[in-house]
Amino acid sequence: MELNVIVWMNSFTPILSFAAGTEITPLLATANAYETDSLILAGVLLSLVVIYLASKIGGELSNQMGLPPLLGELVGGVIVGVSALHLLVFPESGANSSNSVVMNFLQATAGLGPNEASTVFETQSEVLSVFAELCVLVLLFRIGLASNLSELLAVSVQATLVAVAGVAIPFAAGTVGLITLFGVPVLPAIFAGAALTATSISISCRVLLELGRLNSKEGQIILGAAVIDDFLSIIILAAVARLAKTGELDLFNVLYLTISASSFLLGAILLGRFFNKSFVAIADKLLTRGRLVIPAFIFALGMAYFATAIRLEGLLGAFAAGLVLDETDKREELQQQVIPIADLLVPIFFVTVGAKFDLGVLNPAIPGNRESLLIATFLMVVTILGKVVAGYAVFGQTQINRLAIGVGMIPRGEVVLVFAVVGANGVLSESLEAAIITMVILTTFLTPLLLRFVFDHPGVTAVKSK
Amino acid sequence: MELNVIVWMNSFTPILSFAAGTEITPLLATANAYETDSLILAGVLLSLVVIYLASKIGGELSNQMGLPPLLGELVGGVIVGVSALHLLVFPESGANSSNSVVMNFLQATAGLGPNEASTVFETQSEVLSVFAELCVLVLLFRIGLASNLSELLAVSVQATLVAVAGVAIPFAAGTVGLITLFGVPVLPAIFAGAALTATSISISCRVLLELGRLNSKEGQIILGAAVIDDFLSIIILAAVARLAKTGELDLFNVLYLTISASSFLLGAILLGRFFNKSFVAIADKLLTRGRLVIPAFIFALGMAYFATAIRLEGLLGAFAAGLVLDETDKREELQQQVIPIADLLVPIFFVTVGAKFDLGVLNPAIPGNRESLLIATFLMVVTILGKVVAGYAVFGQTQINRLAIGVGMIPRGEVVLVFAVVGANGVLSESLEAAIITMVILTTFLTPLLLRFVFDHPGVTAVKSK
Repeated sequence: MELNVIVWMNSFTPILSFAAGTEITPLLATANAYETDSLILAGVLLSLVVIYLASKIGGELSNQMGLPPLLGELVGGVIVGVSALHLLVFPESGANSSNSVVMNFLQATAGLGPNEASTVFETQSEVLSVFAELCVLVLLFRIGLASNLSELLAVSVQATLVAVAGVAIPFAAGTVGLITLFGVPVLPAIFAGAALTATSISISCRVLLELGRLNSKEGQIILGAAVIDDFLSIIILAAVARLAKTGELDLFNVLYLTISASSFLLGAILLGRFFNKSFVAIADKLLTRGRLVIPAFIFALGMAYFATAIRLEGLLGAFAAGLVLDETDKREELQQQVIPIADLLVPIFFVTVGAKFDLGVLNPAIPGNRESLLIATFLMVVTILGKVVAGYAVFGQTQINRLAIGVGMIPRGEVVLVFAVVGANGVLSESLEAAIITMVILTTFLTPLLLRFVFDHPGVTAVKSK
Repeated sequence: MELNVIVWMNSFTPILSFAAGTEITPLLATANAYETDSLILAGVLLSLVVIYLASKIGGELSNQMGLPPLLGELVGGVIVGVSALHLLVFPESGANSSNSVVMNFLQATAGLGPNEASTVFETQSEVLSVFAELCVLVLLFRIGLASNLSELLAVSVQATLVAVAGVAIPFAAGTVGLITLFGVPVLPAIFAGAALTATSISISCRVLLELGRLNSKEGQIILGAAVIDDFLSIIILAAVARLAKTGELDLFNVLYLTISASSFLLGAILLGRFFNKSFVAIADKLLTRGRLVIPAFIFALGMAYFATAIRLEGLLGAFAAGLVLDETDKREELQQQVIPIADLLVPIFFVTVGAKFDLGVLNPAIPGNRESLLIATFLMVVTILGKVVAGYAVFGQTQINRLAIGVGMIPRGEVVLVFAVVGANGVLSESLEAAIITMVILTTFLTPLLLRFVFDHPGVTAVKSK
């Protein structure tokens, strides 16, 4: 339908452009200055269509293959991005408007003139980047809402042990290994080590659900450990991101950061108990549309601003806001309303991450790339072994599949990408960033397969868990 | 809590800044180049907090006074905007970063340096403006989803008559009056006349619901007429917006625009019948998160892009997409998911409109303003009389409150503001734009009061309806 109408419309346009006394191009009249704004909007609209198509096609194909949709969204982003189709490119990667298929399409169909192309390209890229950052705040808010504080506080010793071991082992082994084996400087090595700590709650959770193992003993420990693990690694990553910003590593700073990040989260939670009641009281008094979701977003955005202002990550603020609001009586109503919003916004971030990822860095034919491939392999080995070993921290339980617990903790997810891309602030070298993203993609890819295997072959694991 | 933590944190900062070897300011270290991006995000976050506070406080107070929340959102925007608090200001109104309270706050609390202030201010303003335009697309999509196409097609002759009269009378009287009485040039006069045509569905609907009159004979005619009215005025406004862009008025152009706008909507609807089935078939095959809402947004954003590319309004595309998807079996599920998204996004647009509105234009002490006040008064008289007269187009019905029907059609709403602000593209003089916005605010303010009066005093209206 759209194509027919375009053809039909175009056959009218020259006459009308003539009649209206404006300039004529083969397709439509050239944009005048007034229209730059609507062209920026048109560029953003088209980019969002590309993003959503990539996320949905990628996510669905991935899901059909029994893999998490997140993986498909990332791969979809890689395909539409700088590595392949150039539909979604950003100035940071050295692209200009002539490299952007969206901009070329706007020139061909919407009357974007060559003079305005670079302004329109840069502005729409800036808008999309900020938009993606807002979307990831919504994700962290949603993760906070999904993480039950009572579960966190009442969690078994088992889950805590698994979480602490699962954070400490890959962090230490990764950092030391990068420094000693690969000669990576201390700061980026710490950053990359920290990126190995966080487990993706959503991935573990979805895989366990699919396998019908969410309520097994193993499933409960994995979930509990993943929640604590997320909490610990957000503190670690926020502290390390602060280091990345000042570019200095000193004990005062580490102490300050550990205290400020912990105090921020713990203070938010403790003092949030008072706020809880006010929040429910306020929400109950409100009668107009969005009476729950708008106060919740005021709180989340305000906390994100506060965290940014004191030089923590905005993400940490949004996560803390989610944790606090999860404690209110409005929990379920709020989750129900935030989920469709997150569903709509979150893919924008992941497709953008994929689109910015230059696959060329992984081409082993180029000698400079071999290092990042080696690093990615190393990071994967450290991650998998670190988490599997952590699974064996479970004690005093017979008949438990410790290997499955370890494997269930393998997927590195959203949080790692977020910090690697947003938080690293340019500290990571391109090859190290590429190695981290590759590691995330590959662990995400492997976990569902491995987890299915270790649960389906209890004989294998029964021997190991004796 | 937040203040205590800030004070506590600040007492640490000088020591730590010293330890880290960075520059020291009284509060926090000055931002380095790396941090410009996170400051832009911080500015957007803080602006969104301001927007949401204004929308919620304004909306709730307005609601408590028995007025529509929309009114409170606009007034809230006026209060935080250029007219009063300067929390939310935009470069278009001649403001720079030193006029923006948000930017000053970022300088005081988040380490924004004076050198980056203007870049951060301009980028965050651009991001917020594009964001507001995206939000209003979501509103038009939602209005499309709420407008039932079957009702439109099967609507009674009565509603059509009321709608046509209610569009034609204020349009003609407004345009002619502005030209002859006020010497307004033809193009802006037509634009302002067109702005008098659209009835706010949401306002009429909400007021009727509150009065328990939605299913009365009067209520049904008002709703049917408001739907057709919206449809007609979107075509008229899109056609006029196209005129505003080319700046020329000629018959070919008018013909082209009428045909293209009608064809776009009607074509979208007719051919949408095929698409309907594909949409449902696709949505049924999808299994991942956002399986309904993301395909719906791909369609809506794509239609908006298409409408923009052929020089109609993106809004028209989003509205048509909503109409088409309202015809599918997924209607209710989709509405349920789009409503919280619209609740979250739509206030951003209206608060921004209010914030950009300079009340100073209405100060009668300034001689230049008297004209816009006179025009606003004239537009209000034309609107109210035009719609009330249109109510008497109902024939062959006894015992019907014709006055109530006319009064129910008075509120000018979202669509008018959208076109006056987004569509006018600089054609309207500041005083004419101010007059239109004043007219919208005042009719929105008056209608609930008037409607309650005419329904509560059937004696008054029974005489009139004989």
